Amino acid sequence: MNFVFDFQEGDGTDRDLLGGKGAGLAEMTRLGLPVPPGFIVTTEACRAYLAASDFPQGLWDQILGAVTRLETRTGRHFSSAVGPPLLLSVRSGAKFSMPGMMDTVLNLGLNDEIVTLLGAWANDDRFAWDAYRRFVQTYGRVVMSVPGDSFEEILSELRDREGVEDDSRLSAAALRDATSRFHALVRERTGRAVPDDAFSQLEAAMRAVFESWNSRRARSYRRIHGIPGTLGTAVNVQTMVFGDLGDDSGTGVCFTRDPATGENRPYGDYLPNAQGEDVVAGIRNTLTLDEMAALRPEHHAHLLKVMATLERHYRDMCDIEFTVERDKLWILQTRIGKRTARAAVRIATGMVGEGLIEKRDAVIRVRPDSLNQLLHPRLPDDYAGEPITTGISASPGAATGAVVFDADTAVEWDEAGKRTILVRWETTPDDIHGMAAAAGILTSHGGKTSHAAVVARGMGKPAVTGAADLVVDQQRRCFGIGDVQYTEGDVITIDGTTGRVFSGEVPLVEPEASPELEELLAWADAYRRLGVRANADTPEDAALAAQWGAEGIGLARTEHMFLGDRLPVVQRLILDEDGSDRKAALEELRALQTADFEAILAAMDGRPVVVRLLDPPLHEFLPDRWELESERDEAVAAGRDSSEIASLMAQVARWEESNPMMGMRGVRLGLVMPDVYRMQVEAALHAVRRRFDAGGSPRLELMVPLVATAEELHRVRLMIDEEIALAERSAGRTLGVKVGTMIETPRAALTAADIGVEAEFFSFGSNDLTQLAFGFSRDDAEAHFLSKYLDDGIFPASPFESLDERGVGRLLRMATVEGKTANPRLQVGICGEHGGDPASIRFCHGAGLDYVSASPHRVPVARLAAAQAAITASGN
Amino acid sequence: MNFVFDFQEGDGTDRDLLGGKGAGLAEMTRLGLPVPPGFIVTTEACRAYLAASDFPQGLWDQILGAVTRLETRTGRHFSSAVGPPLLLSVRSGAKFSMPGMMDTVLNLGLNDEIVTLLGAWANDDRFAWDAYRRFVQTYGRVVMSVPGDSFEEILSELRDREGVEDDSRLSAAALRDATSRFHALVRERTGRAVPDDAFSQLEAAMRAVFESWNSRRARSYRRIHGIPGTLGTAVNVQTMVFGDLGDDSGTGVCFTRDPATGENRPYGDYLPNAQGEDVVAGIRNTLTLDEMAALRPEHHAHLLKVMATLERHYRDMCDIEFTVERDKLWILQTRIGKRTARAAVRIATGMVGEGLIEKRDAVIRVRPDSLNQLLHPRLPDDYAGEPITTGISASPGAATGAVVFDADTAVEWDEAGKRTILVRWETTPDDIHGMAAAAGILTSHGGKTSHAAVVARGMGKPAVTGAADLVVDQQRRCFGIGDVQYTEGDVITIDGTTGRVFSGEVPLVEPEASPELEELLAWADAYRRLGVRANADTPEDAALAAQWGAEGIGLARTEHMFLGDRLPVVQRLILDEDGSDRKAALEELRALQTADFEAILAAMDGRPVVVRLLDPPLHEFLPDRWELESERDEAVAAGRDSSEIASLMAQVARWEESNPMMGMRGVRLGLVMPDVYRMQVEAALHAVRRRFDAGGSPRLELMVPLVATAEELHRVRLMIDEEIALAERSAGRTLGVKVGTMIETPRAALTAADIGVEAEFFSFGSNDLTQLAFGFSRDDAEAHFLSKYLDDGIFPASPFESLDERGVGRLLRMATVEGKTANPRLQVGICGEHGGDPASIRFCHGAGLDYVSASPHRVPVARLAAAQAAITASGN
Repeated sequence: MNFVFDFQEGDGTDRDLLGGKGAGLAEMTRLGLPVPPGFIVTTEACRAYLAASDFPQGLWDQILGAVTRLETRTGRHFSSAVGPPLLLSVRSGAKFSMPGMMDTVLNLGLNDEIVTLLGAWANDDRFAWDAYRRFVQTYGRVVMSVPGDSFEEILSELRDREGVEDDSRLSAAALRDATSRFHALVRERTGRAVPDDAFSQLEAAMRAVFESWNSRRARSYRRIHGIPGTLGTAVNVQTMVFGDLGDDSGTGVCFTRDPATGENRPYGDYLPNAQGEDVVAGIRNTLTLDEMAALRPEHHAHLLKVMATLERHYRDMCDIEFTVERDKLWILQTRIGKRTARAAVRIATGMVGEGLIEKRDAVIRVRPDSLNQLLHPRLPDDYAGEPITTGISASPGAATGAVVFDADTAVEWDEAGKRTILVRWETTPDDIHGMAAAAGILTSHGGKTSHAAVVARGMGKPAVTGAADLVVDQQRRCFGIGDVQYTEGDVITIDGTTGRVFSGEVPLVEPEASPELEELLAWADAYRRLGVRANADTPEDAALAAQWGAEGIGLARTEHMFLGDRLPVVQRLILDEDGSDRKAALEELRALQTADFEAILAAMDGRPVVVRLLDPPLHEFLPDRWELESERDEAVAAGRDSSEIASLMAQVARWEESNPMMGMRGVRLGLVMPDVYRMQVEAALHAVRRRFDAGGSPRLELMVPLVATAEELHRVRLMIDEEIALAERSAGRTLGVKVGTMIETPRAALTAADIGVEAEFFSFGSNDLTQLAFGFSRDDAEAHFLSKYLDDGIFPASPFESLDERGVGRLLRMATVEGKTANPRLQVGICGEHGGDPASIRFCHGAGLDYVSASPHRVPVARLAAAQAAITASGN
Repeated sequence: MNFVFDFQEGDGTDRDLLGGKGAGLAEMTRLGLPVPPGFIVTTEACRAYLAASDFPQGLWDQILGAVTRLETRTGRHFSSAVGPPLLLSVRSGAKFSMPGMMDTVLNLGLNDEIVTLLGAWANDDRFAWDAYRRFVQTYGRVVMSVPGDSFEEILSELRDREGVEDDSRLSAAALRDATSRFHALVRERTGRAVPDDAFSQLEAAMRAVFESWNSRRARSYRRIHGIPGTLGTAVNVQTMVFGDLGDDSGTGVCFTRDPATGENRPYGDYLPNAQGEDVVAGIRNTLTLDEMAALRPEHHAHLLKVMATLERHYRDMCDIEFTVERDKLWILQTRIGKRTARAAVRIATGMVGEGLIEKRDAVIRVRPDSLNQLLHPRLPDDYAGEPITTGISASPGAATGAVVFDADTAVEWDEAGKRTILVRWETTPDDIHGMAAAAGILTSHGGKTSHAAVVARGMGKPAVTGAADLVVDQQRRCFGIGDVQYTEGDVITIDGTTGRVFSGEVPLVEPEASPELEELLAWADAYRRLGVRANADTPEDAALAAQWGAEGIGLARTEHMFLGDRLPVVQRLILDEDGSDRKAALEELRALQTADFEAILAAMDGRPVVVRLLDPPLHEFLPDRWELESERDEAVAAGRDSSEIASLMAQVARWEESNPMMGMRGVRLGLVMPDVYRMQVEAALHAVRRRFDAGGSPRLELMVPLVATAEELHRVRLMIDEEIALAERSAGRTLGVKVGTMIETPRAALTAADIGVEAEFFSFGSNDLTQLAFGFSRDDAEAHFLSKYLDDGIFPASPFESLDERGVGRLLRMATVEGKTANPRLQVGICGEHGGDPASIRFCHGAGLDYVSASPHRVPVARLAAAQAAITASGN
């Protein structure tokens, strides 16, 4: 089997086999761009290696052959004491980019002998020793697992000794010293030496890169980004070129368009006399492309030509790594560039305008989830607060939160419901879980292409990087700006759009659609078959949903209308089961609910509004029994009369349940206490009549929750139909009200054929359906085992975030098909959280649902995802 | 449509159309037995009436025609002032007997004029007025809904006035007086009069009988006995004959064999000079058939001939009502007689011995559920306690419980987990729900054919009736025997087999199989395809199960092994998550569990034993948080150190769950705390090795609970397989251990094809599967809404008692088919409570399961039910 492809041989479209990076190198080589020669070890080889924990038959021989071809092509020598030496980079490259997640070894091929040949070739001993210490440093860390900070300590000592601030100022002697101390460090920590033999180095580096596919941080990244763990990575072995050979050398990263705004102009960072890792790490401050143009106009012009070629070729914004080695430009890598959602939308619509791509491509190209970024809150435009510092605007949007200094705390506090801002000197791949948990990220180092910036943009999370005034003290969990100290828990606000950082909480404004986004969504609407509604319980939410393009309300919950001021009324209703208090309470609630429903119907005039009858267990409206106990104890201790409290406690105890999720809720409540549902129905019908009287076009749909049997729905429906007939007779007109049910118990889905004949619509309550199908409640799962399940890969994704297609999805599919067969006019939607999840929306499209309903902010996400589902399914 | 059939025309096998009673009357008429002439109004007429709330087209005309034919046939006159008068009985008669549940009107056709004709015909004014007062009394109660006790009060006054104890001693004048006071009572209570016109009486009585089909007590009875509510009842209109015309008259009920023991000898009660209702009500003490033979040998002989004819004809034990009117024997009704389980078994096996029926008939004929009676506890044979009184042995078996005096309290206390004995003067159909809830029934009145006796036998519940020493004071909730008073809550023991009543609790003995039962079950085993295993957690239960014929253990739960003495060890394990305490606790438990498993394997040697790994949430093993709180408060108040309690409280709080049923249990526990499962597996394997060493044939099957995904099972299975390999290597032999899983989450059933390839067996945990499919927990449902659902007919039966075939059953069917398709060697069983329910067993047979597993006492029930399922399914 052929496991190895030279760049000029590889099929540049076969990302499955060659990985993204390898395919790009092959493609660029084919296009005649200046790519340092090299070869690709395929993902197939990686999978075979991981399965057997060893190189598959033939692989090593093929690698040896490829190295020999490289020697011939470059005229250099690998593992040989004759110069000039061939040094290699060994880099991972999976099908999907996982920036910084996996391992890389540079300058491979050096040892105490060859470093001299390198010095002679470069005519620069300092350079050669710097290359050698970098090799030992990364090899020691990556291949031999010595912690990176041990190397940094040595460098720090040497910098102090020589009185310099930057490794690039260290003398050749210091670097030679560093190299030998690195060797000693590795021997001391591992009991083994970095091998002298270049082939041994290559073999071990290959193994390390293969194995890094299954590192904890790689698995965590794949989980967050939904990348299958079975793909494996390709490995790219490439001739080293050097940007640190003096002022005629340098290295950089550039994008063919601005990855933050999408503006159609080249964008990038350039660092003279440096190796690539220096740019990414953000240790030194980079130059802009304009500054590079001023410094090296010929390289800048050449680079612009390469960028134009690549963008035309890939018909997308490209992210390019380049190095200038002694006045020669080399292109080390290209890929489709990561971008903010704003940029994605602007680039997609812009390229349609420029005739580069079709509307269909534009719709497909923007990740629906990424729109969340655009839909995030931002600072008020006229906000005049004084920032405490300003850094680099690395990922747009604003966030407020309590300061934390490590990833684990960010996760803990997030789980406790506390929003955080993760503050770091710089982030590393080990911080991924904390970045996912935090509301925003602030670092004192690194630019727009730093780890923090790239990852935050990918996550759609605000980030400010390189805020150089910040003195971060990880140990003491604080940071200082000048004299002012901020400690863990202090609240700050960051604005990733401008790079500003503010002390305290700043009230943020809700986002609005940009013209480009409106355009893209309008195109999407033309493709999609699924309707998109919103879940909204208040007129304000309904108005917001309408603004984002919702075609109706898929779920208006009524329980929120029972809280706040109204709680005492509700409590009277519950506690006085038969008496006059109950009647009076019902009357009062009827009037209030009529106004609630009227306002929502007005906000969605002409569009359907699904009102769900009361669902939660009654005890949710009652005082806490244990608080009452304390009250009683106090009363007793103070000698006050406690009999009333005791009687209230008894009532509260009566409504307690051992598994409230599976208790007296939903339709059961409606059947055991029919007056509550009747009151709600009367109020809703009254609201409809008022809307008609006001000249509106109300479209009420009444929904019965938690039905498990057709008979339950039948009984409630008899009551509703009776009320509708009454209201229509009295109004002298039809009110156009539909009656339907949630499908949220497995049994309801299994008997959809029975239930379908009793309902005009179904709406999948996929949250409860997921909990009941799996047999665990979300709360308990998240408290005790879900994160372990996800970390260990027992679950590929949380079934609460992305619909479990095989189990829960099967119920959805069955219920949709069987419900519609029994009742061809049945409308079927989904109103669980999955209604806003792109993968789940794709599934719903395939399962034949009529609409999805998502939270107002996710309506644009759902519109785009529904369009992509339709385009993908049609295969065009 | 033909709604009316004269007895001689009806098809005596069409019980659907004519009802059981009507079919019997038609059949007996056809056999030439002396049946008073009459006609049957069909169930079809009833259904049409109930649907329209009115007589269907043509019905009334057909009834008028039938009455005219009756006049011709009997030579009497209905509704006419010419004698002799034709009086009618109007009695309900559904397909399935519902004794006492529905309404009857006797002596219909009387008014102030006709009563004189009746007196002249009988030559007995007293008789005529007694008949008339009986008519007004029942008509007033049944048709016009005047409470029965108002009539009784009037009779009681009249008895006092005349100084007699018994209505049969009342003078003609008193009865005439009673009649007119009854008329006045009805007018006063209802504002309407009992109609004079006999046809109006007939029409109203027909309506009342039709409507009694839907009375609360009838619905309640149907629910308990699983009779569909859609059947409707037929109505039998029959010429009245009178057993109260003097000493040459009488009335009785007899059985062709003893309904309590099954002994092959006629059995019955006879009451001279009485109407039939007097026998059933148990108001007067009846004669035995032997006493009747002494009194009236010719009637006795004639009756025996009728009994023989009927038993030969129906090839079953018959229950016969008869009346002697002036030395002429009339047969009023026959039906297949209700019997105790012991009698059912003896009659069935006896009739096979006599060549009357085939073995197959015998197996089909015994209701599996009725075997519970035989499997109920009884008094020790040598029990020498002194009874406080002795009544009639109305329904066999013994029971201990707290005395209650009304049905509602019996239900309440039962729900609170308290066993009760329901004590009544006599029971009425309104007591049905209390009788179902009580452990036993004790009455001071009524014989073996009284309401209490018949219903208790049907329910398989011990009952002592007619304990005449008992003075029951319903109001004050107490009863006295001599000077001793027993009040509500006092514990007594009744022995329905002997009629004895004891004060306090008597330790009861477990039942054993009779030779007849053994014989019947052996025949059953030859027919059934389903295997029958038992759920048993202890060696004692396992031995009991083996004795009842269990073919293995379908579920040995291990959580019980974590309680009692071992609880502190388990708590150490939970509270010390990583430390040495945990290790030591695990070691200790491993040794204990090894012994547990060894003993169970020994008790079931050679037969499979399914051991379920730990399932319940850990906090079930921890102290109650609120109790700890009290302890802490006390410690604080007493100035003691409370820090240890506080820290324990925090640990306990950590394991608390909002919905424990849906939390960290089952396989989740196994994956998050793998050492616990590993310990259990090691212990079980060690037990297997020890059994082999002891020369046994252990067949261990390890079962993983609460699996929702194939991956969960896969991971646990890797660990188990590893341990098996280790144990087998060390034992130098195969241990023959199987690994399988519970299917108790809907998702597991939905993905059975995936899970099937990871499992050697499935066992449906139908309790959890039902809870999750419906989305309610049994506890909460029973506390808040299930009884209302059952009473209102929203659920036809509790899904926890009888498998919900349409919803949960669909999951069972899918999982069985798809699991076996994926893995043809997969064994599939069920170990929820449904495994002992006959209807559910029939379903499991049809769904293709391999075995059911029931509690040890229900193993015979399951064997018989499985045989019936096989016979019914094969259609032979």
